[in-house]
Amino acid sequence: MPQGQPLAVPRDGLTTRQRRNAPLLAVHTGPGKGKSTAAFGMALRAWNQGFDIAVFQFVKSAKWKVGEETALTELGRAHEERGVGGPVEWHKMGSGWSWSRKAGTEDDHAAAAAEGWAEIARRLAEQRHDFYVLDEFTYPLKWGWVDVDEVVATLAERPGSQHVVITGRDAPAALLDAADLVTEMTKVKHPMDAGRKGQKGIEW
Amino acid sequence: MPQGQPLAVPRDGLTTRQRRNAPLLAVHTGPGKGKSTAAFGMALRAWNQGFDIAVFQFVKSAKWKVGEETALTELGRAHEERGVGGPVEWHKMGSGWSWSRKAGTEDDHAAAAAEGWAEIARRLAEQRHDFYVLDEFTYPLKWGWVDVDEVVATLAERPGSQHVVITGRDAPAALLDAADLVTEMTKVKHPMDAGRKGQKGIEW
Repeated sequence: MPQGQPLAVPRDGLTTRQRRNAPLLAVHTGPGKGKSTAAFGMALRAWNQGFDIAVFQFVKSAKWKVGEETALTELGRAHEERGVGGPVEWHKMGSGWSWSRKAGTEDDHAAAAAEGWAEIARRLAEQRHDFYVLDEFTYPLKWGWVDVDEVVATLAERPGSQHVVITGRDAPAALLDAADLVTEMTKVKHPMDAGRKGQKGIEW
Repeated sequence: MPQGQPLAVPRDGLTTRQRRNAPLLAVHTGPGKGKSTAAFGMALRAWNQGFDIAVFQFVKSAKWKVGEETALTELGRAHEERGVGGPVEWHKMGSGWSWSRKAGTEDDHAAAAAEGWAEIARRLAEQRHDFYVLDEFTYPLKWGWVDVDEVVATLAERPGSQHVVITGRDAPAALLDAADLVTEMTKVKHPMDAGRKGQKGIEW
């Protein structure tokens, strides 16, 4: 080891600057609350740095709209109108992705999920965004609608410094191995256990 | 048990509506990432519902500004200017709370923390806000700067349906007992373990 080199510096051949700009792959998994919520919270920081943000929600219904969608879309609007922060795109699988001509994919979630991933892979290749949230993306992986090995290979080969955050329960081992940051949200206590219902402003 | 009563309904004497509006006390603790980030993510939903939001950061330096502060403040601005979402206030302990006349509390964190809590207790009593984030509040509790039993009693007695989210490592047992929702963020894998540095748009 070279003299004077701090022990903490990894021998990866990268400069400090390269390491600072290294693309991050984060996975939020586990049975607890806050997986998606923390991903959207991360998007706030990315927005503040002027990053180009894209959210892809692998949810079954387009009607399911979380408060974060309105809030982040509002921040995207602030970027457009006043030049603060970064741009924000929000895409939902639901009854068909916004870029897709197919309207009736609601009854074929497997095809819709595969189509969503194909678009993300294209955007990664062309470095379209700086910060991607692939919300609930572990489910199509789990159900075999999207091939885990292909996802891992595509993410490993993505150019530039594009950050990707993937959320959902039961993240496959290959994805966890590939991730730089894995956080497991563990449920310690939940009000629904005590018979309480979902609450406005909390659950949606 | 009354006939026809579903088993899942708790025998707490509350109506469904009362239970929906029941004030939530959430604690995000554990050594993993995402405790504060998930709390600010929750604030996005609250904002979208038009809730009045107040963040109190028990941080030592006012210079330490996270991207979430800019983003949520921007959402507060959108509320003021265009009537969308709810109002947002953001307070930091740092070199003195914004409402305080004391400027030089930077060298006395214990007094500053106690003063911060006293203000929060006053606001809870007068139902000033709908959604409170007490960020990094477990530390003053852990260090004895603020009395845990008093906090728990004040929270238990708070009127109306004010939601409170508390973040930080090592949350005291009495606080966890009092909480409705406890999520522990567990670090499974972290890029800093591999010698990577904090990254723009990710760590701040």
